[in-house]
Amino acid sequence: MIDTEYLREKFLQCRKQSEFICKDLEIEDYSVQPVVDVSPPKWHLAHTTWFFEQFILVAFDKNYKVYNDDFAFLFNSYYNNAGDRVLRPNRGLMTRPTVKEVYAYRNYVTEKTLAFLSTDVTEEIKEIIEIGINHEEQHQELLAYDIKYILGHQPTFPNIPLDYSLQEETQDFKFLSVEEGVYEIGHVSNDFCFDNELGVHKTYIQPFSIANKLVTNREFIEFIEDSGYRNFNLWHAAGWDWVQQNNINAPLYWHFFQNKWHYYHTNGFTEIDLELPVMNISYYEAFAFAEWKKMRLPTEFEWEVASEKFNWGQLWEWTASAYLPYPNFKKADGALGEYNGKFMVNLHVLRGASMATPKNHSRKTYRNFFHPELRWMFSGIRLVK
Amino acid sequence: MIDTEYLREKFLQCRKQSEFICKDLEIEDYSVQPVVDVSPPKWHLAHTTWFFEQFILVAFDKNYKVYNDDFAFLFNSYYNNAGDRVLRPNRGLMTRPTVKEVYAYRNYVTEKTLAFLSTDVTEEIKEIIEIGINHEEQHQELLAYDIKYILGHQPTFPNIPLDYSLQEETQDFKFLSVEEGVYEIGHVSNDFCFDNELGVHKTYIQPFSIANKLVTNREFIEFIEDSGYRNFNLWHAAGWDWVQQNNINAPLYWHFFQNKWHYYHTNGFTEIDLELPVMNISYYEAFAFAEWKKMRLPTEFEWEVASEKFNWGQLWEWTASAYLPYPNFKKADGALGEYNGKFMVNLHVLRGASMATPKNHSRKTYRNFFHPELRWMFSGIRLVK
Amino acid sequence: MIDTEYLREKFLQCRKQSEFICKDLEIEDYSVQPVVDVSPPKWHLAHTTWFFEQFILVAFDKNYKVYNDDFAFLFNSYYNNAGDRVLRPNRGLMTRPTVKEVYAYRNYVTEKTLAFLSTDVTEEIKEIIEIGINHEEQHQELLAYDIKYILGHQPTFPNIPLDYSLQEETQDFKFLSVEEGVYEIGHVSNDFCFDNELGVHKTYIQPFSIANKLVTNREFIEFIEDSGYRNFNLWHAAGWDWVQQNNINAPLYWHFFQNKWHYYHTNGFTEIDLELPVMNISYYEAFAFAEWKKMRLPTEFEWEVASEKFNWGQLWEWTASAYLPYPNFKKADGALGEYNGKFMVNLHVLRGASMATPKNHSRKTYRNFFHPELRWMFSGIRLVK
Amino acid sequence: MIDTEYLREKFLQCRKQSEFICKDLEIEDYSVQPVVDVSPPKWHLAHTTWFFEQFILVAFDKNYKVYNDDFAFLFNSYYNNAGDRVLRPNRGLMTRPTVKEVYAYRNYVTEKTLAFLSTDVTEEIKEIIEIGINHEEQHQELLAYDIKYILGHQPTFPNIPLDYSLQEETQDFKFLSVEEGVYEIGHVSNDFCFDNELGVHKTYIQPFSIANKLVTNREFIEFIEDSGYRNFNLWHAAGWDWVQQNNINAPLYWHFFQNKWHYYHTNGFTEIDLELPVMNISYYEAFAFAEWKKMRLPTEFEWEVASEKFNWGQLWEWTASAYLPYPNFKKADGALGEYNGKFMVNLHVLRGASMATPKNHSRKTYRNFFHPELRWMFSGIRLVK
Repeated sequence: MIDTEYLREKFLQCRKQSEFICKDLEIEDYSVQPVVDVSPPKWHLAHTTWFFEQFILVAFDKNYKVYNDDFAFLFNSYYNNAGDRVLRPNRGLMTRPTVKEVYAYRNYVTEKTLAFLSTDVTEEIKEIIEIGINHEEQHQELLAYDIKYILGHQPTFPNIPLDYSLQEETQDFKFLSVEEGVYEIGHVSNDFCFDNELGVHKTYIQPFSIANKLVTNREFIEFIEDSGYRNFNLWHAAGWDWVQQNNINAPLYWHFFQNKWHYYHTNGFTEIDLELPVMNISYYEAFAFAEWKKMRLPTEFEWEVASEKFNWGQLWEWTASAYLPYPNFKKADGALGEYNGKFMVNLHVLRGASMATPKNHSRKTYRNFFHPELRWMFSGIRLVK
Repeated sequence: MIDTEYLREKFLQCRKQSEFICKDLEIEDYSVQPVVDVSPPKWHLAHTTWFFEQFILVAFDKNYKVYNDDFAFLFNSYYNNAGDRVLRPNRGLMTRPTVKEVYAYRNYVTEKTLAFLSTDVTEEIKEIIEIGINHEEQHQELLAYDIKYILGHQPTFPNIPLDYSLQEETQDFKFLSVEEGVYEIGHVSNDFCFDNELGVHKTYIQPFSIANKLVTNREFIEFIEDSGYRNFNLWHAAGWDWVQQNNINAPLYWHFFQNKWHYYHTNGFTEIDLELPVMNISYYEAFAFAEWKKMRLPTEFEWEVASEKFNWGQLWEWTASAYLPYPNFKKADGALGEYNGKFMVNLHVLRGASMATPKNHSRKTYRNFFHPELRWMFSGIRLVK
Repeated sequence: MIDTEYLREKFLQCRKQSEFICKDLEIEDYSVQPVVDVSPPKWHLAHTTWFFEQFILVAFDKNYKVYNDDFAFLFNSYYNNAGDRVLRPNRGLMTRPTVKEVYAYRNYVTEKTLAFLSTDVTEEIKEIIEIGINHEEQHQELLAYDIKYILGHQPTFPNIPLDYSLQEETQDFKFLSVEEGVYEIGHVSNDFCFDNELGVHKTYIQPFSIANKLVTNREFIEFIEDSGYRNFNLWHAAGWDWVQQNNINAPLYWHFFQNKWHYYHTNGFTEIDLELPVMNISYYEAFAFAEWKKMRLPTEFEWEVASEKFNWGQLWEWTASAYLPYPNFKKADGALGEYNGKFMVNLHVLRGASMATPKNHSRKTYRNFFHPELRWMFSGIRLVK
Repeated sequence: MIDTEYLREKFLQCRKQSEFICKDLEIEDYSVQPVVDVSPPKWHLAHTTWFFEQFILVAFDKNYKVYNDDFAFLFNSYYNNAGDRVLRPNRGLMTRPTVKEVYAYRNYVTEKTLAFLSTDVTEEIKEIIEIGINHEEQHQELLAYDIKYILGHQPTFPNIPLDYSLQEETQDFKFLSVEEGVYEIGHVSNDFCFDNELGVHKTYIQPFSIANKLVTNREFIEFIEDSGYRNFNLWHAAGWDWVQQNNINAPLYWHFFQNKWHYYHTNGFTEIDLELPVMNISYYEAFAFAEWKKMRLPTEFEWEVASEKFNWGQLWEWTASAYLPYPNFKKADGALGEYNGKFMVNLHVLRGASMATPKNHSRKTYRNFFHPELRWMFSGIRLVK
């Protein structure tokens, strides 16, 4: 049973937060799509709104009047069951609706959803609203990535106030041992989780030791200086192709000038802080780094089992696990069945959370997933031996 | 001798006109680049400004302080001699500087140029200012094309007030004969012209007859209905590939719905007006249409010789001539030498002017040029037999 | 301890078998590379020879004289540690050495290896020869795939005698149950295996039932006729893109004509035999078919555990498992360390063997792996529920 | 009136010559297509045969039995009117028919054509046979280019006996003057010519001086050493892109090793002979070289008018002229109308002939044409000032 008042609060807070993240953008920053994986902030604001409109108001509120018939086509992301849509690479070409209109659309749908929630809605509807909130929270994190990418790829490297910052992990470095045995994996409580976390099941884990801290910039610079990016023996074949074809020689946003490594954050360039965790790295880089250390990355099961022993939550942590369904995975009926299941091929799992993950949105069973060459998300490395 | 007062007036009028063309745009419309040939309006506004800054103020005004050191990199178009620059396909990714900053940049450079013009500037400087004005006028026409393209490729087909409109050519259709003989080609007066028009020279012309009117939409629909787009015998091999690969079956901006052909202008969709000249067609289409009529397009020399006999100026007219240097063509020294000469391969000449060509910017010797597959410019067809 | 006489026999038999597979080819068939994944038969014959030359003769036989200094460059596949090489997509452009020269090269290396084996070689050398034999056996299977692809993509669909044929699985269909529990996975005996099978380890398996037969053409045609290739809900997002972009509507080599489905084998077209197992399907298709059946594919662990209960060996069977290292996976030192490990990302595991797998080359722990969109290998489907 | 006996002799000689050109090839060399512009020698041998079969035997000989129904599909080049065909980039994938079968096909069609010629054929048929001979002669020259390309792009650089060799032009260098005036252009005699040479017409030519010799390797090395390939001011914008994207720094087949420039001919590598004409250069390179010399290339009309004053015939000479129709150009009816006309866009004209041009196939009015970036043909440079 979801408490309606609690849900209303959470919904409102969530709707405000997305706009808060964009508060320092210029209108021009809202519409651009520098690479296919990065969506325009305007698109995120509208798409998360369309999600409530489509799956709550259109689906259940008989009195609802669609804000604009074109928007379903413009702001559907990947739900084939919800009709045709603008192809992903063309999101950055939409100059209309304007940012102002998108905010008006947001207000309209927010109000209508609140009004609808005041009627005596069913538990099913409340559950879908909760999914909508969690969906928008996921996009809040993507907004953080995408804004950094958009600004960080301007020739002028503009800066805006910084909303997130990494902290040094000050504890002494050590490896934590986990014993061999059968462990239970998956989400158990009644709290919200995504379908891909469900289906508690046993897994056999070999004995392993896992680092209590993330890999730091200091260590990563050692890897660079030891020719890590030029030693093919450290890389997957596909990773080595990626390095060669894209001339990769450092994490994303790293720039070498004035004889030093700097990185770009949305508040501009800083000299690298050696004690902070390294971030914005791909799975290929995480793997090569682990090879170089003669260690490895944890599987997602090892991570879940060991996670209570260390601090996590600053950066998503690449695991050695491909993103595959749990035994007894069941996808939801209808369009929401497309939420997770259809991506379960060619991707790798990240566990944990990042400084851009909305409060209360993280849990140890959360399965994040990305293509192995991507690195604009806030990703880091934890080692196992 | 260029009169300074006259030049000041022309300069100011030109600077205002570029901004007038953009008056109905939303900020979002200024930054997008839907295909590589279409530049963001913001870019045009800044690039034409950079042209005056670079070739007048930086070059000649010792007291000039550059507005922003980054802008040369951002807003140089293709002048290798003027340094590195943002690659053309990336113009649409620049969200910064903002539209507001670009207008401030425009004002700054306009004022500095006017102030500099008030000092006793040389004839050479006045000549380069005149080039700068003509350059900006060319971009005014490109702005018209690009704005139409940007709005016409929104899924929502927005509309703004229309600044240009085609007129029906009401004269009776006839062919005008030109006698065989030696004719002189090229610009002769002291008025401004581009380097590619210079070098008056003789050419031998065979007898020909040329239409006194442009081809109309009515005629073009006949071509479509007679399977013109599906009959490979009418097309160049390269044109046929272009038709097949892009599924071309009508001029750009034509849409068939409600059982009729419509076209998009910036003021929205209209049913096709059969009596207006057909526009937004490629060289390949113009050629195929002429083949279908068992006629041909004029050469640029035929056009120039015959042009006094008919009305022109509504649409640029595709000619059968490749864009090549005139005998004795001399390109200018320095970066301005890159203005025209280096494009003299793989392009076709259009003659005349269009409704979007700035007043006083057209003349019968003007050589416009585009790739044969392009059709977002305001182009039409005049036949010869 | 590997018996030298036994090894000599196996080596000789293996060398002959590769040539036997090519016996019906025309010289022209040996050199072509229709897609990047398919290598020219000539290349396979030379590459497997180079493997023995490089890793045995050059490495250990002090008296060995390299046959041709160019060949290491031409016939290295992907061993970065063994030097530069012809890029994979260019294998089909090599007209020289000729087929005749490649056979001479084969004879030379076969004789030199036999002579070297007659000297008192170490156990390590015998082990590498055994790897070389297994390596060549893998290429024998690829030869079967590639020859079928090359001939099956000729506009003329030539035919040659057929060396392999599928058998109907005549047993009654049933599901075989496996109990929940901890099972051991991985290669245990002293027989040859690849490094990726080593590291016996425990895994926890949930209860499941697995089919005793492969999916048949009859069932697959039902899937097609029920619009399986047009129902996006059955497919991975990546699989659906693959279907759309390549207009996939049937397994590879299937052609619909004379109102019936036919398939191409190297001996020409045949009407589909409904009772034979369906083959030449991608992981995406196997997955979609299982979705349509409301079942799933086995994991590679489930397969290995259950494999003694059913007949296998006609077709490689797609599993639900991504190709990842076993716990404690150790790659070999030097160039042979590149054999398997560096491919452990983005691929899916197939288990079993096919009719083209060399005798004695199959075992239940064998981990074959391919990209999920590939289907020119002899692959089939076994279902789990 | 074409003399039948003469035609028979010419036909037979032509058929033999194509095979003579291929006499030193290995079977493997016949089938490969390293880039889209280079066709497999086997394809040339079959396509020229298909041309006689299609346009003579099938068209006129009622008793003719088609050799193989598939061959029209396989060996049609670009005649849309003659039906569907294998796409050009796939010519190199055809392993069947074999080389041996193609020779059998040649013999069959040669014999049938000779037999048909012995019947009392019409003048029209004899004219088409003459076109067929000229067509095959054009392919003989392409065979020379393609064989050099195929062998010259083997990693092993094989060699075969050389059938063509350039001669030093020993006359003293001078410029030959041509007076201003009206000249006649185009083919006049009754001898064979292609449709694109017809339509004698007047052209006005400004006074010019043209070199009596081709540019030599010595001069071209000076251009290279003066950074000609790195000075963007010398190049067309499209040419500069081509240089950058392909890392061009010398003519095709030039290799710098042992501290010297060498070039590859089909008989292997030789040190550059400084006194020979430079060959295998693109239009872009010819243009840039002329810019560097502060001269220019001749137009095709200048070339034709001046050609009697100098020796030509070693290399095709790039002209400044785009390939466009002459006034009154008429393409033939039916499929042969596709021979020339449909290529009249985006190409540049070369005049003269090369050492690989069949005897009696060259004449001063001959218009050869290629894309400006191509350079595998035997092309050279003659300057005008």
